[in-house]
Amino acid sequence: MKVAIIMGSISDMHVMQEAIDILNSFNISIEVDIVSAHRTPEKLVDFSKNAHERGISVIIAGAGGAAHLPGMVASMSPLPVIGVPVKSSNSIDGWDSVLSILQMPGGVPVATVALNGAKNAGILAAQIIGSHDSTVLNKIVAYKESLKEAVLKASKNLEI
Amino acid sequence: MKVAIIMGSISDMHVMQEAIDILNSFNISIEVDIVSAHRTPEKLVDFSKNAHERGISVIIAGAGGAAHLPGMVASMSPLPVIGVPVKSSNSIDGWDSVLSILQMPGGVPVATVALNGAKNAGILAAQIIGSHDSTVLNKIVAYKESLKEAVLKASKNLEI
Amino acid sequence: MKVAIIMGSISDMHVMQEAIDILNSFNISIEVDIVSAHRTPEKLVDFSKNAHERGISVIIAGAGGAAHLPGMVASMSPLPVIGVPVKSSNSIDGWDSVLSILQMPGGVPVATVALNGAKNAGILAAQIIGSHDSTVLNKIVAYKESLKEAVLKASKNLEI
Amino acid sequence: MKVAIIMGSISDMHVMQEAIDILNSFNISIEVDIVSAHRTPEKLVDFSKNAHERGISVIIAGAGGAAHLPGMVASMSPLPVIGVPVKSSNSIDGWDSVLSILQMPGGVPVATVALNGAKNAGILAAQIIGSHDSTVLNKIVAYKESLKEAVLKASKNLEI
Amino acid sequence: MKVAIIMGSISDMHVMQEAIDILNSFNISIEVDIVSAHRTPEKLVDFSKNAHERGISVIIAGAGGAAHLPGMVASMSPLPVIGVPVKSSNSIDGWDSVLSILQMPGGVPVATVALNGAKNAGILAAQIIGSHDSTVLNKIVAYKESLKEAVLKASKNLEI
Amino acid sequence: MKVAIIMGSISDMHVMQEAIDILNSFNISIEVDIVSAHRTPEKLVDFSKNAHERGISVIIAGAGGAAHLPGMVASMSPLPVIGVPVKSSNSIDGWDSVLSILQMPGGVPVATVALNGAKNAGILAAQIIGSHDSTVLNKIVAYKESLKEAVLKASKNLEI
Amino acid sequence: MKVAIIMGSISDMHVMQEAIDILNSFNISIEVDIVSAHRTPEKLVDFSKNAHERGISVIIAGAGGAAHLPGMVASMSPLPVIGVPVKSSNSIDGWDSVLSILQMPGGVPVATVALNGAKNAGILAAQIIGSHDSTVLNKIVAYKESLKEAVLKASKNLEI
Amino acid sequence: MKVAIIMGSISDMHVMQEAIDILNSFNISIEVDIVSAHRTPEKLVDFSKNAHERGISVIIAGAGGAAHLPGMVASMSPLPVIGVPVKSSNSIDGWDSVLSILQMPGGVPVATVALNGAKNAGILAAQIIGSHDSTVLNKIVAYKESLKEAVLKASKNLEI
Repeated sequence: MKVAIIMGSISDMHVMQEAIDILNSFNISIEVDIVSAHRTPEKLVDFSKNAHERGISVIIAGAGGAAHLPGMVASMSPLPVIGVPVKSSNSIDGWDSVLSILQMPGGVPVATVALNGAKNAGILAAQIIGSHDSTVLNKIVAYKESLKEAVLKASKNLEI
Repeated sequence: MKVAIIMGSISDMHVMQEAIDILNSFNISIEVDIVSAHRTPEKLVDFSKNAHERGISVIIAGAGGAAHLPGMVASMSPLPVIGVPVKSSNSIDGWDSVLSILQMPGGVPVATVALNGAKNAGILAAQIIGSHDSTVLNKIVAYKESLKEAVLKASKNLEI
Repeated sequence: MKVAIIMGSISDMHVMQEAIDILNSFNISIEVDIVSAHRTPEKLVDFSKNAHERGISVIIAGAGGAAHLPGMVASMSPLPVIGVPVKSSNSIDGWDSVLSILQMPGGVPVATVALNGAKNAGILAAQIIGSHDSTVLNKIVAYKESLKEAVLKASKNLEI
Repeated sequence: MKVAIIMGSISDMHVMQEAIDILNSFNISIEVDIVSAHRTPEKLVDFSKNAHERGISVIIAGAGGAAHLPGMVASMSPLPVIGVPVKSSNSIDGWDSVLSILQMPGGVPVATVALNGAKNAGILAAQIIGSHDSTVLNKIVAYKESLKEAVLKASKNLEI
Repeated sequence: MKVAIIMGSISDMHVMQEAIDILNSFNISIEVDIVSAHRTPEKLVDFSKNAHERGISVIIAGAGGAAHLPGMVASMSPLPVIGVPVKSSNSIDGWDSVLSILQMPGGVPVATVALNGAKNAGILAAQIIGSHDSTVLNKIVAYKESLKEAVLKASKNLEI
Repeated sequence: MKVAIIMGSISDMHVMQEAIDILNSFNISIEVDIVSAHRTPEKLVDFSKNAHERGISVIIAGAGGAAHLPGMVASMSPLPVIGVPVKSSNSIDGWDSVLSILQMPGGVPVATVALNGAKNAGILAAQIIGSHDSTVLNKIVAYKESLKEAVLKASKNLEI
Repeated sequence: MKVAIIMGSISDMHVMQEAIDILNSFNISIEVDIVSAHRTPEKLVDFSKNAHERGISVIIAGAGGAAHLPGMVASMSPLPVIGVPVKSSNSIDGWDSVLSILQMPGGVPVATVALNGAKNAGILAAQIIGSHDSTVLNKIVAYKESLKEAVLKASKNLEI
Repeated sequence: MKVAIIMGSISDMHVMQEAIDILNSFNISIEVDIVSAHRTPEKLVDFSKNAHERGISVIIAGAGGAAHLPGMVASMSPLPVIGVPVKSSNSIDGWDSVLSILQMPGGVPVATVALNGAKNAGILAAQIIGSHDSTVLNKIVAYKESLKEAVLKASKNLEI
């Protein structure tokens, strides 16, 4: 039960760190690596073909611009792949990142989250594990409860 | 191990049927219903709060325009929710459907697939089950193999 | 005769404050709260179903990104709901906020104002009250007069 | 208690008819006219300045392309103005209609509904009247109930 | 032979100043005023109906957001109206300003220039006058020559 | 006093015909030609450099896709150039045509009209001539009056 | 001296045929194949790594939606890769196809042509060969001349 | 074997410098100049018609806004032209630069790279030369290898 978090460039780390943090907070074991679809295609193939045989359950892949990493991993792995569109410096306001991850052809889905939504990618990975692991499911329930508490507390502060 | 497929309106069925068909072809059991975030909000709450206690593992929700169904289900269920943006007749070229499903705030992810991408939603649901069920995982592997064979056959036909 | 002003997050307050200020300047009584569609769905239901029985006449709801708050309130309340698309930090230039509030399906309108247009939401709420309350109507007339005076004064300053 | 429904051109009638129909079904009295901001500016001024003194409570204005009618009426009337962006033949996919109605400057709100959303404009007008007229409010409640019934019936048909 | 330069708000002046400057440099006489379509509609009518009888030959109108000023002036004046879309603070990246000025219906043209293109509005006004005034035409020819000289000089500097 | 109407391809004629028709109706003399920026660049140079010496007062240029014709004519002619963005078959919903004509750099304006707005281009050309020719100005005034009459008649028909 | 033309799916052939036709008309030898980045990733690797050793000089790759084929080929081949964004049925008006091909990261260029611009891809491939082969260069010169002749003939027909 | 790098304005140099640097690093000889389509049209014609006869093999042209330079060069030169859309200060988020370079009509291709992608333009020029010059081809292979090494090193640093 491990989540792999990969990204196309070390410059995506400031966004992807949120996926690492939230999964750590759920005590879900992770591995983190840099795999560039365009600069290390052989590593991409190796990673994608073998991930499910190395004990990985879910893959989170972040990339920006013409972002091919999530889709290419999805083309070679039977595992669920979560794509994080990163608003990188060479992106046109993030539209390229979003569309080149979201609009996958029939047969090869990528579970896309919001632009720079690495935190949600981590939560989604936990939910996927939680769909058959009641310990993790309960952590999700508790996490959502904590979100509610925070809003209710902010609401209470308004009254004062 | 069941996948729930819901949609905001019966008019979304022509798109969502592809999710039904692909999950049927994988022999994964499903339930199908119409749940409108805007017209049956009580049913939405009931459905979302109880799905995980009724043996549902994954929820697929399709909607168009200002599409709130997937996000609202995700706000009340700990299960992974897959959102299908539907290009309905009242949509602005699909952009409203895509953005109102994809751009969820931190804490409440929706696994978004391509516009009208119900088939990929079904495959992604199967991959989520397959991440901890080797029988389903093998079906995914076989399915991807069949995609490859179809392309190679089309390629061979070109040569003639 | 009261206007409820709600928002999805305390971080929307810097935008929504303008609605509070303008309604205060009209001496229209208000209540302000934080209600998150995605993090406090039960509170959302409670608020929406009962607002018209608590003496609320108009609801102003502000939210950003995949902004479901205004539409979900509108689905459960018979009152006019004014939606304020907020350009939050997780928004794609505001397009997601605008489209997920504006493009409501037939049957469930949201009166949408401009991106970050909380001031206009407040004025619109006053106009709704003014449509059957001549005191408030006269305040609107006077307010519009003051807008004109400000422009004419600026015009006069140009001549000097 | 009357709703005025105006449009920039007779060619907008196929869209605006839905506002007429829904208000008729609520037994709310209406008047319908063609007022072009660009071709009959004097009529625009007359209409806008006097509507509230002729017993009009709410104004619905539909227009397409560079759609100035709703905003110009709002600049001269203290009444709530509901704008319907029409996807006319000279529109760029409706974006011009939406943005030129929605993005009004501070001080002059237009309550904008979805592209071609004339039905919702009618419902919103009824809700504005209903905010201080319990007979109309109850009609809105009943209308929303009927929307729910229709979805539940469609849901039931699925089971068969 | 006079060019009127009007704008919807004094806050547009930092953009519109470029039109003033270039027309001054051509020694074409101008008048400058603030006319808000939404806040001073009566002044708008007065200005538009009488401009051509006061010796104005061309009107330049700048506005941002849902920018109705240029189109409304064009609806009431037989003179050529040049519209300058201003990227104001309440604009969605300028798209609303551009579309609500450019997309005028058949019968009522606005000569639209680039976003914030007040300088070009001034040059265009001069060209319109120059189309029947050879002194001004020659100034345009000389101005274009000066643009060429500047580029050629920059090109020469590169060689060093 | 002549208006030149040019277009990038004979396939633009179905749009540009409206400019021809309206100018004919004003009895303004015209010449019509096909000048392709990309396929007949020499003819483009000849046309642009000499138009003002051949008695042309205004140039209307229509083109689609990456539409360079209006801007390139404007770079070489001192006359006012009106650009008509054509929604050609190879265009991305007209956005390319609009932006490549509208967004000219400082120094080289193109008076841009709406997508496919050839009729307005013709009227604008007439207005430019009318700015110093009272016969044509009066025709414009009469034309605008006829627009008003048509709307008022349609309005009257509604009453019946 | 051979140009390889590949596409992601046989359904792209109706667009890509224009590249085949124009290269045939230049007597440049070609090979045509279907290579899907997402369904035949191994074939993608084989093709890309070896093309330059099999006598291929230029690669033309067409794909639609989240179009990864051109970029992935470019990541593994040292040859110039020309990308053709195809407006496939699952595309959002072509924007996804364009952005996922055009916006490649630094280090891995794709020479992108217009949406559905397969003909231009063929001409560009010929120009690349022509940059060091004067026979082909002369064919390009002659081809451009023929474009000019066609426009001049259409222009002449207008006069009649 | 020379690459010409031209740009519409000296203000584009901060972007275009990357093309110069990468070609210098490949020891490919270059010439650099400023050629404005709109301000120096005669120089544009001279440059474009003669480049292939002065030993130029590839042309790189950068421009922003309504960017006509690359397309106009392509209309007059038989050489491959690489277009760099520059996000200049007068651009609408770069969309105008991209679309007015990319969307060239059939017959006149421009090899377009990403927004501000001058580095990739340089690499593409090298690849075009490398398609028939094995020394340059080997440099491309080595360059791509260096990209891979950089990613693998960053990946290794993560482990520590």
